[in-house]
Amino acid sequence: MKDKLVHLLNTCINHSSESDLLALSFVLEGMQNKLLGNNGYFIDGLLHMERKFDKNSCEITIPINPVLNNSLEIVHGGITATLLDTAMGTLANYLLPEGYGAVTNQLNIHYIAPGIGENLRCKAEIIHQGSKTMVISGEVYRSDGRKIAYATGTFFIIDRKINEA
Amino acid sequence: MKDKLVHLLNTCINHSSESDLLALSFVLEGMQNKLLGNNGYFIDGLLHMERKFDKNSCEITIPINPVLNNSLEIVHGGITATLLDTAMGTLANYLLPEGYGAVTNQLNIHYIAPGIGENLRCKAEIIHQGSKTMVISGEVYRSDGRKIAYATGTFFIIDRKINEA
Amino acid sequence: MKDKLVHLLNTCINHSSESDLLALSFVLEGMQNKLLGNNGYFIDGLLHMERKFDKNSCEITIPINPVLNNSLEIVHGGITATLLDTAMGTLANYLLPEGYGAVTNQLNIHYIAPGIGENLRCKAEIIHQGSKTMVISGEVYRSDGRKIAYATGTFFIIDRKINEA
Amino acid sequence: MKDKLVHLLNTCINHSSESDLLALSFVLEGMQNKLLGNNGYFIDGLLHMERKFDKNSCEITIPINPVLNNSLEIVHGGITATLLDTAMGTLANYLLPEGYGAVTNQLNIHYIAPGIGENLRCKAEIIHQGSKTMVISGEVYRSDGRKIAYATGTFFIIDRKINEA
Repeated sequence: MKDKLVHLLNTCINHSSESDLLALSFVLEGMQNKLLGNNGYFIDGLLHMERKFDKNSCEITIPINPVLNNSLEIVHGGITATLLDTAMGTLANYLLPEGYGAVTNQLNIHYIAPGIGENLRCKAEIIHQGSKTMVISGEVYRSDGRKIAYATGTFFIIDRKINEA
Repeated sequence: MKDKLVHLLNTCINHSSESDLLALSFVLEGMQNKLLGNNGYFIDGLLHMERKFDKNSCEITIPINPVLNNSLEIVHGGITATLLDTAMGTLANYLLPEGYGAVTNQLNIHYIAPGIGENLRCKAEIIHQGSKTMVISGEVYRSDGRKIAYATGTFFIIDRKINEA
Repeated sequence: MKDKLVHLLNTCINHSSESDLLALSFVLEGMQNKLLGNNGYFIDGLLHMERKFDKNSCEITIPINPVLNNSLEIVHGGITATLLDTAMGTLANYLLPEGYGAVTNQLNIHYIAPGIGENLRCKAEIIHQGSKTMVISGEVYRSDGRKIAYATGTFFIIDRKINEA
Repeated sequence: MKDKLVHLLNTCINHSSESDLLALSFVLEGMQNKLLGNNGYFIDGLLHMERKFDKNSCEITIPINPVLNNSLEIVHGGITATLLDTAMGTLANYLLPEGYGAVTNQLNIHYIAPGIGENLRCKAEIIHQGSKTMVISGEVYRSDGRKIAYATGTFFIIDRKINEA
């Protein structure tokens, strides 16, 4: 398996432009983020997520890299959605008492401006905290300060103890 | 740079379980998909997307891999969103005459069941085709046939000639 | 009170054009629909709703009247929303066993074309029926056959016995 | 026609409980609001809307009356949607220069708590003002201060001069 991986990497390198090599580096560093335990799972490692909390909000920042772009060379709408869902879900889980978890039930995103520049910063805030559901908003800004997306989502509160039983 | 990449891969391998090695392979094969020209950009390469068209729909299938999961070990909602946005946007572009393109303006997703199993299949269909906007739906099914998500989105039609001018 | 009502009606009549008199008639007939028991509550009486079911869908038709228009002289988006929410909620309740009810948790509407013509017809269909929630779609057509709106909604299933206890 | 209207009113009165008479009064006063020119069209008259502006928001308050309720005796979700769409659309139009208008393209509503009590107050605020679209949020509160709904919508900006040409 290790030989296969080295062979795969060599094939990738041999077909890479300078810019593609940076993309390869971005992806391998992303995998390393997870494997060294700096991130909890592969996606937040691959997106190089950095999180920050205060009492009622969660902020996640990711660097922009050609790996994240669509064919128009702007950040793929799915990446923006991943950033939003992660920040909003992280806030939901952060606000719940131990033993409870939150899962996304519905997510509505307004795309406002193209994702370009150095990084994207997403801020999630609570709109409603009920006993069965939470409604959370998320805004995404690029490094020049322009808002590129606004989202709201419904999160279901689940009792992990019951779900594990 | 090439040495750095090989060094990065070795660090990853050294910190990998058997399952992590499969994840590394999934990601490098994904990068290779793009670099060899089998996919148009990195994200659809990394997700190992396979597309199929008929007159009024676009279908994309992706294999499920631990790389795509969140901390609950089900497919991350952002990955489902990426699959939906890609299939819906691809259909939008497919239906437009040459010289025109479509960009996502708004996307609303209902998450219905957890993404688990061997693969996810997304089918996008047209709800409304206007002169300025299109409304498109997308459904995602897992390999056991269960529907896991339903989405609708508004796509703006842009004149590439004007936007390039 | 009855004298006050007659006086109110006279004031309305005295300030009415021919077209306003038709609007007054539409509204009083709407109130009568409810008071004579032809409709279950005032709103579906005022909108002159007529319902039709088959196994998996609910269809509601309403006549268009200037009373329902906004300042642009097309049907107010809130009226279209009321028609959608009613048809979708009616279907949700229709599909549930006795003792259970459905309440709207989230509603997303795409407005596609102006509401004009003789009437609006809304068809609601089931997308997902779970044990805790249902996802339902609704489409609105005007009398010339053109689709004017497409919506999806999440409905929560409540146990009326528990909620009454 | 006037005789028919008086006859209709008498039939309504004869089938009314005390509470139904108050509903009839609410509706006739609502029609009068429009016919005397206190409101611009029938719906905002019928809902007894009162508007208030400051620089970046629009607030509309309506009294709650049994006329507005659904079969569960809480305010119908369509009425809440009408209140939201009106406040959000009014703000959109208020922010545009003369000669331009805004039409609702998409509206997403989270229903959070039942609409009960004396009145509902809706506050609309701007999220994004572009050259072709605006994204606007709306929150609805009941008289005890509890938030009952949160919505976002996309509004298209139209050039009234071109549309009239």
